[in-house]
Amino acid sequence: MALLERHDTGHVAHLQLNAPERLNALSDEMLAALMAQIDALSQDRAIRAVVLSGAGKVFCAGHDLKQMQAGRQADDDGRAYFADLFARCSAVMTGLQRLPQPVIAQVHGIATAAGCQLVASCDMAVAAKGTRFGVNGVNIGLFCSTPMVALTRNIPAKHAFEMLSTGRFADAEEARQMGLVNRVVPHDQLGEVTLDLARTVADKLGAAVKIGKSAFYAQAGLAVDEAYAYAGAVMVENMLWRDTDEGISAFLEKRDPDWRQ
Amino acid sequence: MALLERHDTGHVAHLQLNAPERLNALSDEMLAALMAQIDALSQDRAIRAVVLSGAGKVFCAGHDLKQMQAGRQADDDGRAYFADLFARCSAVMTGLQRLPQPVIAQVHGIATAAGCQLVASCDMAVAAKGTRFGVNGVNIGLFCSTPMVALTRNIPAKHAFEMLSTGRFADAEEARQMGLVNRVVPHDQLGEVTLDLARTVADKLGAAVKIGKSAFYAQAGLAVDEAYAYAGAVMVENMLWRDTDEGISAFLEKRDPDWRQ
Amino acid sequence: MALLERHDTGHVAHLQLNAPERLNALSDEMLAALMAQIDALSQDRAIRAVVLSGAGKVFCAGHDLKQMQAGRQADDDGRAYFADLFARCSAVMTGLQRLPQPVIAQVHGIATAAGCQLVASCDMAVAAKGTRFGVNGVNIGLFCSTPMVALTRNIPAKHAFEMLSTGRFADAEEARQMGLVNRVVPHDQLGEVTLDLARTVADKLGAAVKIGKSAFYAQAGLAVDEAYAYAGAVMVENMLWRDTDEGISAFLEKRDPDWRQ
Repeated sequence: MALLERHDTGHVAHLQLNAPERLNALSDEMLAALMAQIDALSQDRAIRAVVLSGAGKVFCAGHDLKQMQAGRQADDDGRAYFADLFARCSAVMTGLQRLPQPVIAQVHGIATAAGCQLVASCDMAVAAKGTRFGVNGVNIGLFCSTPMVALTRNIPAKHAFEMLSTGRFADAEEARQMGLVNRVVPHDQLGEVTLDLARTVADKLGAAVKIGKSAFYAQAGLAVDEAYAYAGAVMVENMLWRDTDEGISAFLEKRDPDWRQ
Repeated sequence: MALLERHDTGHVAHLQLNAPERLNALSDEMLAALMAQIDALSQDRAIRAVVLSGAGKVFCAGHDLKQMQAGRQADDDGRAYFADLFARCSAVMTGLQRLPQPVIAQVHGIATAAGCQLVASCDMAVAAKGTRFGVNGVNIGLFCSTPMVALTRNIPAKHAFEMLSTGRFADAEEARQMGLVNRVVPHDQLGEVTLDLARTVADKLGAAVKIGKSAFYAQAGLAVDEAYAYAGAVMVENMLWRDTDEGISAFLEKRDPDWRQ
Repeated sequence: MALLERHDTGHVAHLQLNAPERLNALSDEMLAALMAQIDALSQDRAIRAVVLSGAGKVFCAGHDLKQMQAGRQADDDGRAYFADLFARCSAVMTGLQRLPQPVIAQVHGIATAAGCQLVASCDMAVAAKGTRFGVNGVNIGLFCSTPMVALTRNIPAKHAFEMLSTGRFADAEEARQMGLVNRVVPHDQLGEVTLDLARTVADKLGAAVKIGKSAFYAQAGLAVDEAYAYAGAVMVENMLWRDTDEGISAFLEKRDPDWRQ
């Protein structure tokens, strides 16, 4: 079994963190495996949606603390290693958003620290009832500063501050209300519901989803007028595709589109 | 009947999209009528609040797809027309926010694509129970990129992404919880509740609402210190008005203000 | 009794606005007292969390309107005084966020105008059931432009616009759902729950909370890639502290950390 399993079902790629004995920690090896899959998926035109889950009892418990502590043996007490580690981890997190395909976190058990960041960094998330979310590094003296970047772009400021400064866990329903996950389902339906969501996205015109996802993040930080100029240009490109012409015509003629995608 | 009806009640202007047989589509003509009213209202000192509703069974179903498809006949396959169309549409959306008066969407039936954007672009929104909101262009191969600009400035990121990439509708109550509408009321109370809200706003000191609405959007994208510098200057101007002096004095003296507005 | 009472309990400083007969108005004197405590606390390494409450029946009713009206007697009708007043008030609000320690608002009764801004400006807030929140300056002709800066960084846009333009009050539970407060508790548990929350934060590694709080606000306005570069550098510094090394080792060895903080 690979550290990061991949199984494709139709146009959906399913990535599973597969180090259950280490709570699917984001070790150097796991981050490298994730980045390799991100690179592969970014070129994979057959895949139109990605599901990310964890094997075993939990989704992901964050960084590999033993490996991090071992990094202190270097002459610089680990400074260079840590800087590189957080840069690689951030590249994975932002890489998920740079992927052309939507990525859905399928979350169960716990999602803590960088594991919670992983959920926040996916485009959507489905959680099993009872899942607990935390950015609890503060409990061991390490404030979850990089997970904060993703978390604060998902949930309201005061809720984010509380989770970060107290280490308190939020359960799945609270996470949904805050905006961290889209849906909460019984554990035995988690895989099915997530796959349904992935298939729903995969059934759309792939090029439209791709240009839309890219625009989603590109326009987020812009002033409104700039955002409209940007999004308007995206709409024009989208309109000029043959498949979009066909999609609109089919809708007007009340028939299914004949997409060549 | 005009394509865009306007009826004023006291200091409230009520605009009604009036192309029910076309689901109040934002055709070239409808956009032009909206922009003309925006221009007129921006100069109309008698009006202190605006209500925007739709005639017939739905609020607004977005762009006029037949007209858009006809635009493809041009030599450039419609590129110039589409660019102009989205620019005019964006100008209407941002024009609502640039209006000195608060604008309240009165929503029923469905609000989809640019119709949902219209709701998101109003300052406030009241929805009838059962109203459905969608940015479902993705279903016909046209990602709702410009509606996204308004939507993502109203609701949490993951909910916005789901609506945009799956085309899923949110009902009125869900829309309220996400922040897209302020209130949900039974359909037979929709007009009354919206008008009450408009009148509440119209009863305030108009100049204060005007300077405040302008500041609301101007400060939104600024860093906190810049936002405070800006808002502080607005407060100073506001304080120096005769009517504000009178408003504060009346409050301290427990009497009604004698405003000259 | 001082205008602003301070009582320290272990590592928690409790500040209490103490002008109940004036509804704890943010007079020139109160703002000066708050700024003096902010300055003192910023240098106080023994304090790791701050609670801010109000004596009497309400938390805070905003600016001191009588004092503001008296300011109009100056040759410039108060322009210079008002500009200075709002600058001092904004410095207090942002000063709470610049403090190294988390600040928790303990709110009861009412929190209106700059009093509501005070809640929004604290890092966290606990409210008694029945507390009412408003930015209702618009009712007297003075739009709450500076409170808006804090409020719109706490709650969704449409809800903020409604509160600002209508003067409508939100009750504690609604405030929680919108993101303005973290918890709502019965009034007779307000002090205890807030103190528990403060102690939870104060029990963490102080340096980690400090570097994290600072990063929380510093990264908020940045583009994602810049935010990650910034937060990554913060994580590296955090990792290199002796107490963080100890905290992680203790966690891995399933023992309590021996922090020297």
